[in-house]
Amino acid sequence: MTYDMIVYNGLVVTVNPDFDILKSGMIFIHDGRIAGVEQYDPDTVLPGSRELIDAKGGLIMPGLVNTHTHIPMTLFRGLADDIALDVWLNEYIFPAEAKYINPESVFYSSLLACAEMLLSGTTTCCDGYFLEDEVAKSVDISGIRAVLGHGVIDFPAPGVPNPSDNVKTALAFVHKWQDVSPLITPSIFCHSPYTCSADTLKKAKNAARSRGLLFQIHAAETKNERDQFLYKNKMTSAASMNELGILDENTLLVHGVWFDEHDIDIVAKSGARISHNPESNMKLASGIAPVPDFLKAEIIVGLGTDGCASNNNLDLFQEMDFAAKLHKVNTLDPRTADAKTILKMATIEGAKAIGLGSITGSLEKGKQADIIILNTSSPHLFPMYNPVSHIVYSITGSDVRDVIVRGRTVVRNRKLLTINTDDLFDKIQVFADRICAESL
Amino acid sequence: MTYDMIVYNGLVVTVNPDFDILKSGMIFIHDGRIAGVEQYDPDTVLPGSRELIDAKGGLIMPGLVNTHTHIPMTLFRGLADDIALDVWLNEYIFPAEAKYINPESVFYSSLLACAEMLLSGTTTCCDGYFLEDEVAKSVDISGIRAVLGHGVIDFPAPGVPNPSDNVKTALAFVHKWQDVSPLITPSIFCHSPYTCSADTLKKAKNAARSRGLLFQIHAAETKNERDQFLYKNKMTSAASMNELGILDENTLLVHGVWFDEHDIDIVAKSGARISHNPESNMKLASGIAPVPDFLKAEIIVGLGTDGCASNNNLDLFQEMDFAAKLHKVNTLDPRTADAKTILKMATIEGAKAIGLGSITGSLEKGKQADIIILNTSSPHLFPMYNPVSHIVYSITGSDVRDVIVRGRTVVRNRKLLTINTDDLFDKIQVFADRICAESL
Ligand SMILES: [Zn+2]
Ligand SMILES: [Zn+2]
Repeated sequence: MTYDMIVYNGLVVTVNPDFDILKSGMIFIHDGRIAGVEQYDPDTVLPGSRELIDAKGGLIMPGLVNTHTHIPMTLFRGLADDIALDVWLNEYIFPAEAKYINPESVFYSSLLACAEMLLSGTTTCCDGYFLEDEVAKSVDISGIRAVLGHGVIDFPAPGVPNPSDNVKTALAFVHKWQDVSPLITPSIFCHSPYTCSADTLKKAKNAARSRGLLFQIHAAETKNERDQFLYKNKMTSAASMNELGILDENTLLVHGVWFDEHDIDIVAKSGARISHNPESNMKLASGIAPVPDFLKAEIIVGLGTDGCASNNNLDLFQEMDFAAKLHKVNTLDPRTADAKTILKMATIEGAKAIGLGSITGSLEKGKQADIIILNTSSPHLFPMYNPVSHIVYSITGSDVRDVIVRGRTVVRNRKLLTINTDDLFDKIQVFADRICAESL
Repeated sequence: MTYDMIVYNGLVVTVNPDFDILKSGMIFIHDGRIAGVEQYDPDTVLPGSRELIDAKGGLIMPGLVNTHTHIPMTLFRGLADDIALDVWLNEYIFPAEAKYINPESVFYSSLLACAEMLLSGTTTCCDGYFLEDEVAKSVDISGIRAVLGHGVIDFPAPGVPNPSDNVKTALAFVHKWQDVSPLITPSIFCHSPYTCSADTLKKAKNAARSRGLLFQIHAAETKNERDQFLYKNKMTSAASMNELGILDENTLLVHGVWFDEHDIDIVAKSGARISHNPESNMKLASGIAPVPDFLKAEIIVGLGTDGCASNNNLDLFQEMDFAAKLHKVNTLDPRTADAKTILKMATIEGAKAIGLGSITGSLEKGKQADIIILNTSSPHLFPMYNPVSHIVYSITGSDVRDVIVRGRTVVRNRKLLTINTDDLFDKIQVFADRICAESL
């Protein structure tokens, strides 16, 4: 047979169940899927293929999975840092969102985020925001894979002036994008248990459940949030969500920084998943999520960058480095959060966390061809004894050379093929100039 | 007059005492020094210059200062991670050093480190290791600025089979390199208060003091080290060093993770400086240094990467990101370790910490021309409201375009001009293959 594409001549980190690593491998791709992963021998003739991609001794691995983003927030990258969380939210982010978030700005800011994610090796993201229709349009253009949820909150929000329309609006998004692209999976994103009533949460979860959709929700991000929720509801948010019946395998709990033992037990029993966002939790000084305890309880944990305003980048390679080191120093045990565990969080476990575990997150026959190639011929990657160590501790998104999503090359030799970034920068600059002139 | 070089047409972050930022600036360079920093207007004619470097709207800033490295350890990058500290040291690092550290491997591994540092925007490093003569040779070839100290320890060490020769050997290095290059400043590096006797420490410090040299020493890196020192000596290492009279403005204390209030008071009063190495402290799970307390006590604090085996890179841009976020989450206060404070740690404060505060670390008239230019035309750097925020939270070493040390371009368009990296990789691979075959 003639394949659509063969990627060959690179060290392959499969992240398959056996965590196989091939010193030199080749990957056959057909109809958007991986048709085979095999040893590569430079002396044998490659099978027929419409496209051949020589990894030139670099590293071939699954594209990364970012389990939590608010991608239009690239617009506010670095707008306000190093200030108290309530000031950050109330004096900067919320007013900026009210003033500058509109369909056009969301569209272009999302394009910018997709460009950044693809160029740093992320092939799948899970997003929740408002005006999500515009996010979906930009995602569609960029060629990234995405799980997208329109925001549900019991306050007026961009595109949802009347909160009583919140679930209806989120569902309209689902219906619109349900069958548009194999790369887009609609979802529902409830902001949090403290900004959505019990009724809203149940209604939204039921809507998600009946359609088999991922239900995303922030939970226990800050100590203050936890304390206030406990005071008002006489139970933790995890216990409350459990009582409301909204925790199951299709629920993604974002952060969980302040989950206690009992919460972890509830989450583990429910089968709900957790998105861990170490850089955002550190930068906003929210706290350190008990990730080693999540893993001990066999909860599926993925990694996320969160929105750009609290990070301030969408580079999952750096996020891995932070995750590994943060939990080591927090437990005073260097064996915590080993590189293999962290790499899995950024790939296969992340894919499972957002309901795409059978589709992406590893290089296995039958899975979608979401593949990245890293250039390892740089001083900061020499020598290489252990590719997994390099992926977590030494590589950054800038080492990504090629990116393939569903068998289609979207980044080649560090050039993004789907978006004209120069034109995009001009567009973004117009928004930024206005924000500068009015806000700073 | 005709300048040697003018760097122009970029946003200039000076890190001068007023922390001036020029929206578009130009820097005049002559005889290796900065002859002026001025606003740039594209309509005016530039003065005469032998070399013109157009920053093309990028970011111009002082080269970074890495206050603590063991640069030959690039050879062991990723050789052993995620294991207990005593196992890491006793079963991997010490045996690997004993077996593979020799003049040739130190020379090439140091060249590799210099290549990595220069390409990621570091123009000055402060190193301590053994066979430091080979380190100095490679530093000299690379064109980086360095403070170099030959290791002093009361055990047999590479190149010092007889510990009683330790201070003598360190001084021989000083004499040899004292006047070789304006870029190399000899120093003395005592390993630590628990591996050097009181006599050795005093002898080494006196040798440094009489010659006006920087005295580098590890201190209070791990809790175990602190506890053991206290048990044996009935006082902390800081108190002990103070009693021995080895703390002064020319002493650089590396780590200080476990310094308590009393130690901090002693250090502050002595005028000694601290090198903070957050990524190494995190990866080895040593603990979190009380950096906000150091700063409150007005101790001069610089940033360092430590050796590559405990990081696993030498990128100070990433180190800044870690430093800022680590102390925010540790204090649960996002105002801690703001971007400006962290940038100063990686530049001017770092330069002061290693005795080069009047020479480098900021863009000011009269200082040495140690300058880097960053390409900011990438999706992950758009938009830019605050360049200092970008430097700390969004930029990595891969965004460095040009590097100038003492008025000489050593990196141009991401190409290192002083070292043939392809040949170097071949050399390193030979060492790595042997280590792989015998150790892994
Ligand atoms: Zn979020
Ligand atoms: Zn050290």
